[in-house]
Amino acid sequence: MDHFKHNYKLLIAYDGTNYCGWQIQPNGPTIQEILQKSINTLLRSQVQLIGSGRTDAGVHALGQTAHFKCNHSIDLYRFHGSLNALLPRDIRVIEIVPVPLQFHAQYSALRKTYHYHLHLDRVLNPFKRLYSLHVLEKIDTHRLREAAKQFLGTHDFTSFANEAHTGTAAHDAIRTIHRLDVIPQEGGVRLEFEADGFLYKMVRNIVGTLLEVAAFKCDIEEIASIFEAKDRRRAGKAALPHGLFLMHVEYSSEISHLH
Amino acid sequence: MDHFKHNYKLLIAYDGTNYCGWQIQPNGPTIQEILQKSINTLLRSQVQLIGSGRTDAGVHALGQTAHFKCNHSIDLYRFHGSLNALLPRDIRVIEIVPVPLQFHAQYSALRKTYHYHLHLDRVLNPFKRLYSLHVLEKIDTHRLREAAKQFLGTHDFTSFANEAHTGTAAHDAIRTIHRLDVIPQEGGVRLEFEADGFLYKMVRNIVGTLLEVAAFKCDIEEIASIFEAKDRRRAGKAALPHGLFLMHVEYSSEISHLH
Repeated sequence: MDHFKHNYKLLIAYDGTNYCGWQIQPNGPTIQEILQKSINTLLRSQVQLIGSGRTDAGVHALGQTAHFKCNHSIDLYRFHGSLNALLPRDIRVIEIVPVPLQFHAQYSALRKTYHYHLHLDRVLNPFKRLYSLHVLEKIDTHRLREAAKQFLGTHDFTSFANEAHTGTAAHDAIRTIHRLDVIPQEGGVRLEFEADGFLYKMVRNIVGTLLEVAAFKCDIEEIASIFEAKDRRRAGKAALPHGLFLMHVEYSSEISHLH
Repeated sequence: MDHFKHNYKLLIAYDGTNYCGWQIQPNGPTIQEILQKSINTLLRSQVQLIGSGRTDAGVHALGQTAHFKCNHSIDLYRFHGSLNALLPRDIRVIEIVPVPLQFHAQYSALRKTYHYHLHLDRVLNPFKRLYSLHVLEKIDTHRLREAAKQFLGTHDFTSFANEAHTGTAAHDAIRTIHRLDVIPQEGGVRLEFEADGFLYKMVRNIVGTLLEVAAFKCDIEEIASIFEAKDRRRAGKAALPHGLFLMHVEYSSEISHLH
């Protein structure tokens, strides 16, 4: 039974380069593990830190969220400073706020925004090597934009989802993509995804398919039949993780603020 | 005696994080060493790669230049691709062009541009940790701008130069700063330095002094007396290397193009 008195929401940024992703696992250091350990060191207790969802090894975040519950009230200004002082510099807590007890970083999430960066210059900019996918093939950004439209709205995304290796497969693969914009930026483009939720590897699988279309290896019309097939093998290869950024997790203001 | 038939100019970008600077030295890997080795591997010869000047450990470049001479004509399109394929991804050759034999990357340089990035948000953005100085003190950007004006024009920069540890001290510390702009950018400001040349650690020493003024630890009027003292100990501490980028080295078009 849940009998905690306080609930705290964290807004977190991290460079995923040196981590095995968000979720605690035996193979190496993860963001969740390091954050939870640091919080427990400071609070001298054993809280459980729950994220909005995991991010894979190499994926970055500017707007990951998480929550933890505890029984004593925390001096947040001091705690925030101490926590960042304890954390490695590639993980930063941007903000900590008290939230109602029913707030849950994963289950209360209404929408998420991910960005995927494509670097399209012929010569790789070394400062983008860890933060974008360097596409060496010639791609047509008009086709990229047209293909992106095929993913908008409500679909069964089975063909674009990998099975999660935790055994918790998605029972329901229906998701709604509210926005998928192709934004020009210095050295390439940025794909902005906004949806009510994302299945495992969904963004990277969609990017992989978009790149095949944009490189004239797949027709735009084929996307509809990939959706219909409900078969992961029909879609493109997952794009590499290091171009992906979790930007924002949206909650209703009632549940994410104490009044 | 110099009896080479060909001279080639390279435009180079590098993330300096993992290197002991530009110049070959025994303590660890340097950009010059890795580039020269890769060129020699491809050409099966022993060229000498000469840069426009060294950059310190941790300093980055988007526009470093270098030249090497050799006796045979190189298929530059193929060579460029092979060289980047051989180099680590944090060093990239942006361009290679043939230049007149009298071109010298260091001695022919007319002007250089350096940028120094100051990150002024309270919480460090993890993606800026290796590419800007996170300033935790409150600084006044109006004072920063006013202090920057004091460095414009021709001065004896002895007080702002460290002795080079190669033994080749500057005989003449007179330099002309043509431009020193404070440009607002996301999360802070960028200082843009343009001069006919820079002494050893000159940019970082000036930034250190500017930060003392901007943090109200030093009066703007004191800068003139620091110049006059011609004493390195009078100026501020050198700002850390990782905020510094060599952006551009300018040459006359006659010497840097084959006609």
